[in-house]
Amino acid sequence: MTAETLCVGTEILLGNIVNTNAAYLASQYAKLGITSYYQTVVGDNAERIKECVSMALSRSDLLVISGGLGPTQDDLTKEAVSELLGRKMDVDDTSAKRIKLYFDKRGKKMSKNNIRQAMIPEGARIIDNNNGLAPGVLIELNAKEAAKFGKNAKTAPMILMLPGPPEELTAMWESSVAGILQKYTGQVIYSAMVKICGRTESEVAELLDDLIQSSGEVTVAPYAKTGEVHLRVTASAEDEKSAKKLVKPVIKEIKNRLGDSVYTTDEDTTLEQAVVELLLANGLTVTTAESCTGGLIAGRLINVPGVSEIFKSGYITYSNKAKRKIIGVKRKSLEKYGAVSAQVVKEMVEGVAFFTKSDVAVAVSGIAGPDGGTPEKPVGLVYIGVNVCGHVTVKDFHFSGNRAKVRESSVANALILMRQCILEYYSRLTFGEELN
Amino acid sequence: MTAETLCVGTEILLGNIVNTNAAYLASQYAKLGITSYYQTVVGDNAERIKECVSMALSRSDLLVISGGLGPTQDDLTKEAVSELLGRKMDVDDTSAKRIKLYFDKRGKKMSKNNIRQAMIPEGARIIDNNNGLAPGVLIELNAKEAAKFGKNAKTAPMILMLPGPPEELTAMWESSVAGILQKYTGQVIYSAMVKICGRTESEVAELLDDLIQSSGEVTVAPYAKTGEVHLRVTASAEDEKSAKKLVKPVIKEIKNRLGDSVYTTDEDTTLEQAVVELLLANGLTVTTAESCTGGLIAGRLINVPGVSEIFKSGYITYSNKAKRKIIGVKRKSLEKYGAVSAQVVKEMVEGVAFFTKSDVAVAVSGIAGPDGGTPEKPVGLVYIGVNVCGHVTVKDFHFSGNRAKVRESSVANALILMRQCILEYYSRLTFGEELN
Repeated sequence: MTAETLCVGTEILLGNIVNTNAAYLASQYAKLGITSYYQTVVGDNAERIKECVSMALSRSDLLVISGGLGPTQDDLTKEAVSELLGRKMDVDDTSAKRIKLYFDKRGKKMSKNNIRQAMIPEGARIIDNNNGLAPGVLIELNAKEAAKFGKNAKTAPMILMLPGPPEELTAMWESSVAGILQKYTGQVIYSAMVKICGRTESEVAELLDDLIQSSGEVTVAPYAKTGEVHLRVTASAEDEKSAKKLVKPVIKEIKNRLGDSVYTTDEDTTLEQAVVELLLANGLTVTTAESCTGGLIAGRLINVPGVSEIFKSGYITYSNKAKRKIIGVKRKSLEKYGAVSAQVVKEMVEGVAFFTKSDVAVAVSGIAGPDGGTPEKPVGLVYIGVNVCGHVTVKDFHFSGNRAKVRESSVANALILMRQCILEYYSRLTFGEELN
Repeated sequence: MTAETLCVGTEILLGNIVNTNAAYLASQYAKLGITSYYQTVVGDNAERIKECVSMALSRSDLLVISGGLGPTQDDLTKEAVSELLGRKMDVDDTSAKRIKLYFDKRGKKMSKNNIRQAMIPEGARIIDNNNGLAPGVLIELNAKEAAKFGKNAKTAPMILMLPGPPEELTAMWESSVAGILQKYTGQVIYSAMVKICGRTESEVAELLDDLIQSSGEVTVAPYAKTGEVHLRVTASAEDEKSAKKLVKPVIKEIKNRLGDSVYTTDEDTTLEQAVVELLLANGLTVTTAESCTGGLIAGRLINVPGVSEIFKSGYITYSNKAKRKIIGVKRKSLEKYGAVSAQVVKEMVEGVAFFTKSDVAVAVSGIAGPDGGTPEKPVGLVYIGVNVCGHVTVKDFHFSGNRAKVRESSVANALILMRQCILEYYSRLTFGEELN
């Protein structure tokens, strides 16, 4: 099966947004063993949309269109496709009710425009949208329609229309579309994810060079994220069992070589989830004291459902006074070493653990920029401290990039250092090392 | 002038990389007043590249191709274009020397493949690459070539081939390409951004229907974000001054109709920045008490450089005990109304302002899910409270989507409510209403 992507939206043609939908869809085709030769972007213009749809239907088995399902007059995807195929548009009652309910719930009046989102080409299949108002739409062309594009009943293409907002598109793909498409493709691709933290992409590439370069049945593709490297390990076979059997030994080998740096082999597990699970498994409560990250470490920990068992409170101590008054950093230390120093971060992580009676604490103080840097303490210098049951580790980091990037790197590395310190604490316990 | 983009590379079709080149090029066209109707991505396949090039030459004045200029057998762009036009390929001596020098400098031997990077279609213009080995190539089609694509000598299109690595492409664009193209376009496009908060996309669309629908000289294109709607207002004219003159009255009209919902007309100003600037302008300090958002509101405020003047500390009070002990919520209120209630959020926002002696406080408590919902208090119910100098507002919200989406909506709406409450506080002061 061949698929191609058509992204509709003038905002993409103006360069206002980066087309992440096309990349997401491409990676999903690959997972399903669907080949893709083309991606196209077109603006909110009915004639040009029709031109692109025609072209795609003549050369691919599946056309996936994203965007243009919104409530405004600019949203033309369904209208253009219906006109091209000669199908009428009808209101889908279920979708209309969902939309009305949405507005009722919020005590708002549904605008006339919103009913457009419930209009569906005749005979189309509806795909529920659990994250927005525009349902997805799947059309299988009939023989007559297929003939217009040089196809016959057997080779009749399909059109899948998905909402443009990335979170709606990905959620819809995962909950419904992937399952629907798998029935059309004979081949099964199985892929697993190995997530690594605390190592650079080049370190990982060097350690796994032979696996990544291998032209064998199993491909290993690295993908770098802030503080993390994700490896997608993929094999295709006639059924899932056979494909899994190919992938399994490769994952085992990766784990052997990378050890504790592998924090999960589960696709959906995030770094913060791995940290929270480690805390839960050991019955450890946790707290945070943040300066330049300003709540973002706590924010990531609280991403994890169920964190309330171990996370009770956290502190954003942005000013020196807050560091003193709330978590007991010494005035003398602030004066002598400055707020961005190993000593102050040590006191932050000791103080916040003491006052909240938490087993584990993390603290961050750094210079995120753009101002505040000096030759001795340049922008990007960040101290991260972790306290595990009284054992304190403080490390300095030198991050590059703008304010947002420095803060993002700080948050990721705080989570990584928490994980490392907890693992080390328990490995020392296991080996009977005396803990002072 | 119309331009379209063709990005060549199987790695884009596999979803391994996000196509940032297309977004960059799009934004550069807009700057130069070049209209763009299409973007295409195609893999490393000579026949399909030719097909896409033909299509583009028949419908656009300028085709910009990125990628496929590298040294490997997979890099086919120049070959495909030359074949299509019937031009021979020659070694460009200057480029060949540059490449040789590159390897000499590094004490490496130039591989045979690298000479491919110096091969150029006859009669093409070379654009130096200061950041890599592959030069850029510009071809103006002659009348005979143009005729193949339904054009004549006057409408003959151009082909511009740029290297795929984003840092090479952008550097080449800025140092050479922009200047070359400016000579071909007489026109300048000016566009401005109007950012709106606290109104849905359909509300905005209804209020501005005539402006959005207008086929006049000025286009208004809405783009929805969480809690926000951004409008791009664009006009083209022979010089920037005239284009600006067209855009100005439209922005004024939008502001008239939408009033305070417009929080900025500056491209780079974010919602959190608008809120922080409002606080700074009024000399107001601010604090946060967050439950389900777990630090993300503080995290967004601290995005803004210079926030340290007004933000001293913030609290993540995730547990009931933390709400009681840290910010003084009454045990009775927690028992009677529950942690997710207007009363508790009122006490949070009063308590945190009192204990930190802040002028403005924001507090959030809600059910982000996936667990914890009941029929009376379903997942997505979030209370947001704002305290401006003792004047407390608490509102309930009903957000949809998963945990991440509910939290993101909560953060955006907390910022929006802060802004509204501060504006209202001062407008009441202005009108002399008595403040208790």
